[in-house]
Amino acid sequence: MRTVVALGGNALAPSGEATIAAQRERIEETADELQVLHEEGHDLVSTHGNGPQVGALLRQQEESNVPERPLDVLVAETQAQIGYLLQQAIDERINASVASVVTQVAVDPEDSAFDEPSKPVGPYLSAEQARERDFETTEVTTPEGETAYRRVVPSPEPTRILEGERVESLVADGAPVVCGGGGGVPVTVGEEGIEGVAAVVDKDHTTRLVAERVDSEVLVMATDVPCVYTDFGTAEQTSIEDATAAEMREHLASGEFGEGSMQPKVRACLRFLDAGGERAVVAGTGDIAAAVAGDAGTQISPD
Amino acid sequence: MRTVVALGGNALAPSGEATIAAQRERIEETADELQVLHEEGHDLVSTHGNGPQVGALLRQQEESNVPERPLDVLVAETQAQIGYLLQQAIDERINASVASVVTQVAVDPEDSAFDEPSKPVGPYLSAEQARERDFETTEVTTPEGETAYRRVVPSPEPTRILEGERVESLVADGAPVVCGGGGGVPVTVGEEGIEGVAAVVDKDHTTRLVAERVDSEVLVMATDVPCVYTDFGTAEQTSIEDATAAEMREHLASGEFGEGSMQPKVRACLRFLDAGGERAVVAGTGDIAAAVAGDAGTQISPD
Repeated sequence: MRTVVALGGNALAPSGEATIAAQRERIEETADELQVLHEEGHDLVSTHGNGPQVGALLRQQEESNVPERPLDVLVAETQAQIGYLLQQAIDERINASVASVVTQVAVDPEDSAFDEPSKPVGPYLSAEQARERDFETTEVTTPEGETAYRRVVPSPEPTRILEGERVESLVADGAPVVCGGGGGVPVTVGEEGIEGVAAVVDKDHTTRLVAERVDSEVLVMATDVPCVYTDFGTAEQTSIEDATAAEMREHLASGEFGEGSMQPKVRACLRFLDAGGERAVVAGTGDIAAAVAGDAGTQISPD
Repeated sequence: MRTVVALGGNALAPSGEATIAAQRERIEETADELQVLHEEGHDLVSTHGNGPQVGALLRQQEESNVPERPLDVLVAETQAQIGYLLQQAIDERINASVASVVTQVAVDPEDSAFDEPSKPVGPYLSAEQARERDFETTEVTTPEGETAYRRVVPSPEPTRILEGERVESLVADGAPVVCGGGGGVPVTVGEEGIEGVAAVVDKDHTTRLVAERVDSEVLVMATDVPCVYTDFGTAEQTSIEDATAAEMREHLASGEFGEGSMQPKVRACLRFLDAGGERAVVAGTGDIAAAVAGDAGTQISPD
């Protein structure tokens, strides 16, 4: 059975600026989960986020005078940084060699996201720093409650995994594959060639594309909460254990889910099911194997 | 025909600290060469160096206070940085998807190289900075003729490509593969698991291992000079156009080749031929296709 697992947040690092040692610790726990699935016969593809990691690289650029590397290159770098740690941790558990593949995703240059950069990336900047930069910035509030500025980039929708055929060959090999890190490096593909763009692609939608590309039966979104909730964060918070796609669509329509958090995950799950997926699950990072077994998380079935 | 090409120095970047734009320019020229080989039916595997790139990441760490990442992680990052640029440039020329694979190479923890770290990496440090660091340093002379210090790390011999089987599957697909960047991330593989080590592996020897692993017929070392010379840098400098392995072995024994430059390339070529390779070539980065055709570089044949 083919199973695609998206590793977010806690699955990769504790919150805040984490050392590699701290990241390794989280990744070891995640690899334990993946080991169970591999041993149960799942052909695994893992994708992963890169928010804190690309943030650290952007801040490092601000603080040093080494020639600046554009965002597309930094995203690629985080794919290997996290991919290396993941593949090493999985390798040593399953006695097989895991490949991490540097992944590009095509985006449409006409995507309306380019008209309205909305995704903050990189360090907090002062008003003066923000004025000096050649990129767009937005006013934000720091955790200390102060006014600051951050770079904003568009978050266009991914339309194609450029390395899809390669990922397919690797999955067919029966060894786990790591790809699509950080949502993939966004590129435009045109007559002029392939060009990296200064944008950030939603990892959940890239994961859905990967899952469709390799004909995965199951898609797992591993995240920092144990499942999807209605009335999240209120006294009425209720966990959703099982739902049909239609039911989840209703919750979405009624605005149940947070825009930057649960909404993209649920949307990606629904599109995966629409495209023929058999089951989509949203689960906590420590429950990946249990979630695939149907014993944890929110299990979403097609209509 | 399977052909492995090691891309060094000029094939990837102009000398000094290069911008990504300048690196792209070089890589475009290199991709032109690889395109010719792909169109001629070669199943290509490319490896690449990472000296200036990993140097830039090390310097960036010195200049910023983002949590420090160990050398093994930085080497992995450069694999994606350069791999991404290479795969994009090749993709757009050949209308196929190239995979860059994050590559680990096993090294022997008993390798004598660990007793005597000899490879300088990273930025120039003052005596005071050198004393403060928790790594070994060595006294060096800067290009300006001043005394400074640099970190030194061991350069052990690679014994196995951990992702060898994956690279083999990808080559069998018929699309070019990029792997073994920067000589691979050196790791020890033992009962405790797999552990990255603070070392740098010679890219030429990793390339030779890759070539043996995929049963390559031809191995090309693309470098900054057009071929191998006897009496290099003297008035008697003479190019070697064709040689048998035995002839090259004699040149080696007589100390003809520079320790950090031509010697490892020639040694790697000889080991490739010893292991059953049909032809090894040392050529300039602009002559890769011509060298494979037998029209450029130093052509070395088995005894």
